[in-house]
Amino acid sequence: MRRKLHGIAAEVMARLDVLAALTVEPGGARQLVRAAERARAKTLVGGWMRDAGMVVRSDPAGNLIGRYEGERDGAPALLLGSRLETSVDSGRFDGPLGALAGIAVVQLLAREEQRLPVALEVAAFADEAGVRFAADPVGTLVAGREPPAARAVPSGAIPFPRLAQPAARPTFPKLLAYVELRAEQGPVLDTEGVPLGVGTAVAGQARLGITLEGHAGHAGAVPMELRRDALAAAAEMVLLVERRCSEEGLVGTVGRLAVEPEAPDAIPGTCRFHIDVRAADDASRDLALDDIREGLAEIARRRRLACWVEEQRRVPAVRCDAALSRRLGDALAEEGLGVRELASGAGRDAMAIASLCPAGMLLVRCHGAARRPGEWVTVDDCETALRALERFVRDFRAEDEAPAAHPWSAYRGLARVPARAG
Amino acid sequence: MRRKLHGIAAEVMARLDVLAALTVEPGGARQLVRAAERARAKTLVGGWMRDAGMVVRSDPAGNLIGRYEGERDGAPALLLGSRLETSVDSGRFDGPLGALAGIAVVQLLAREEQRLPVALEVAAFADEAGVRFAADPVGTLVAGREPPAARAVPSGAIPFPRLAQPAARPTFPKLLAYVELRAEQGPVLDTEGVPLGVGTAVAGQARLGITLEGHAGHAGAVPMELRRDALAAAAEMVLLVERRCSEEGLVGTVGRLAVEPEAPDAIPGTCRFHIDVRAADDASRDLALDDIREGLAEIARRRRLACWVEEQRRVPAVRCDAALSRRLGDALAEEGLGVRELASGAGRDAMAIASLCPAGMLLVRCHGAARRPGEWVTVDDCETALRALERFVRDFRAEDEAPAAHPWSAYRGLARVPARAG
Repeated sequence: MRRKLHGIAAEVMARLDVLAALTVEPGGARQLVRAAERARAKTLVGGWMRDAGMVVRSDPAGNLIGRYEGERDGAPALLLGSRLETSVDSGRFDGPLGALAGIAVVQLLAREEQRLPVALEVAAFADEAGVRFAADPVGTLVAGREPPAARAVPSGAIPFPRLAQPAARPTFPKLLAYVELRAEQGPVLDTEGVPLGVGTAVAGQARLGITLEGHAGHAGAVPMELRRDALAAAAEMVLLVERRCSEEGLVGTVGRLAVEPEAPDAIPGTCRFHIDVRAADDASRDLALDDIREGLAEIARRRRLACWVEEQRRVPAVRCDAALSRRLGDALAEEGLGVRELASGAGRDAMAIASLCPAGMLLVRCHGAARRPGEWVTVDDCETALRALERFVRDFRAEDEAPAAHPWSAYRGLARVPARAG
Repeated sequence: MRRKLHGIAAEVMARLDVLAALTVEPGGARQLVRAAERARAKTLVGGWMRDAGMVVRSDPAGNLIGRYEGERDGAPALLLGSRLETSVDSGRFDGPLGALAGIAVVQLLAREEQRLPVALEVAAFADEAGVRFAADPVGTLVAGREPPAARAVPSGAIPFPRLAQPAARPTFPKLLAYVELRAEQGPVLDTEGVPLGVGTAVAGQARLGITLEGHAGHAGAVPMELRRDALAAAAEMVLLVERRCSEEGLVGTVGRLAVEPEAPDAIPGTCRFHIDVRAADDASRDLALDDIREGLAEIARRRRLACWVEEQRRVPAVRCDAALSRRLGDALAEEGLGVRELASGAGRDAMAIASLCPAGMLLVRCHGAARRPGEWVTVDDCETALRALERFVRDFRAEDEAPAAHPWSAYRGLARVPARAG
């Protein structure tokens, strides 16, 4: 029997709207960028947690955590959640859906005054997307890791060093598993007509920064055969990336490109761009990177340009916990849904949490999927996601998880968490 | 016997330095952008004209004209000159060399108290490059034409409508011919080891503004086969322009290109760029444009992108006067120089003046040729240019020119000058 969760799905959607209204950019939900909006968003979400029956705390890294106690006090916790804010240029569905869905599941349990064998915690993580602190998952601070190397500061963001370091170690109780519900942010589920997918991995990412130095010139005065046009060389390189990454399981993108001098009647002398390559399999990504580097060098040589390649990032793929993913699939099946497995190409908080405990993902179909404000999740799909998540939570048992060889020690003794790139 | 003009060539170079020092941008000579530097530059150049023995006037369009009277007062004039300022991002050799060389020739004549059968006028034109008024040759105002359509206003420039319209018609005396000495601003003479060239034409120019609308997306979340990447499409188009314009006598350039959203981890959804195509022969340029338009449409169709093509400019080529060019060649030959004919791909004041009287060009070898501050002309080449120009001027006879069927009427009755694009 399928219970109707339409009302609570509509409430989740309304709450996304409320958070989006705090944005400093129309259409987005970058409320964490400014302290005032950030505080307001956390006050709202904390209030919703309390209304749902949770005890709310926050940690020095800025994460907000609500706890719904289990059948016995102090029980190990199943953690649901996501970050609160969205990336630059992303929309309201980019971040907070997981946290709000977690709150909604607690509401459903509390309504029936039902306690589970485990505690349920819901986290609204701070700044996974690096909107505020110009660093990747600052949520990783909860894991006691070193902050990642600072990267280019997005406009309006606070440089990393100004982040107050946690005064005390975070105070998570024992964690059994983490499940992150997120909009897919890609067109795969939409194209296949599937409302929900089970995440298998967060793709690893590599980013190269390319600088081409050719020879600027007057667009009218330099014969074609005497040119060293940096943009024409870059154009070949863009197509090389596209071609090489069209292999199964890879994606490759040039998303930022700038020329100098930038004038309609000047041959570009300099061109700078970034290459982003991702795959759920690190080895095939690294092979592609090697081929791309070789191709770049060949193009630059043939066109007599200088070419600098700077590896700015190489983050390994993080696999979701297989047992946990299986149980997420079981929950979908029990709710009469097909089980589509897919890797997330977008970075997720799960990347950080996976070093603490088994991590899994539920990905929700996204329409108009694009890294921009226009993408959306329907209220029907939100309802379906809540149904699956609630089923999973109700069926979750701590003992199923305990035998897994996970680094609990890493969680208890934070200093022992293995270092991992950005 | 070659007379030594090294001293006066060094003085021309020093004067270029003085003008460059008035720039508002290091390395350039954009002294006309701000009223104070503009006034200072005109005061200096006017002073040099007077020192050389000229009577100086200026016209309402801002052109500065020095007159060195001929054997009889009020004789028709041979006009030398160029514009005073440089283009955005260009160097000290971009503009004023022709005006300063004209002054130097007058100095040489005046030193010997020699009068010619014709008057010699030297013009320092205002704003051919549109630096100040965001419109192409404002010098064309001297011809009484309509100002060209306003175009995008370069940073710091004054929008066209704020230009004071000439209160009175300009007061040029009868013009016999116009000769413009300019740095080539291209690498052709340098590559061939030739110090001076005789201009055959100013290439015609077409400019297309392209807007591509594909689909933005998250660089990790959209499989390659589902993408509509605006930059990848633009890359194909850049290479198409390069390939099609590699035909003899054509040049094609994409000099400005911008993507949206501009983020390393976003698939570009929109791309805007300009295509600049030039040729000394309008027909072959137009054929190339047709082929390029067809190619753009094919690429956009295949990649499922919307593509808008806006023709922003189509300026016909202007041929130099054949008889005048021949006599410029004769002067070079008499000075023992080879005669290399070449078209100027860069726009020149001669484009405007050619509708008034026979126009010719002398192009000087340019090192590090680029539309940027780094290009330079050696003092030796400057000396060679002065020698050739002086020879030409001394040998110039009005009667040689008079039979030519040139629109003197157009000059006398300014309203009858035929309209011509940009």
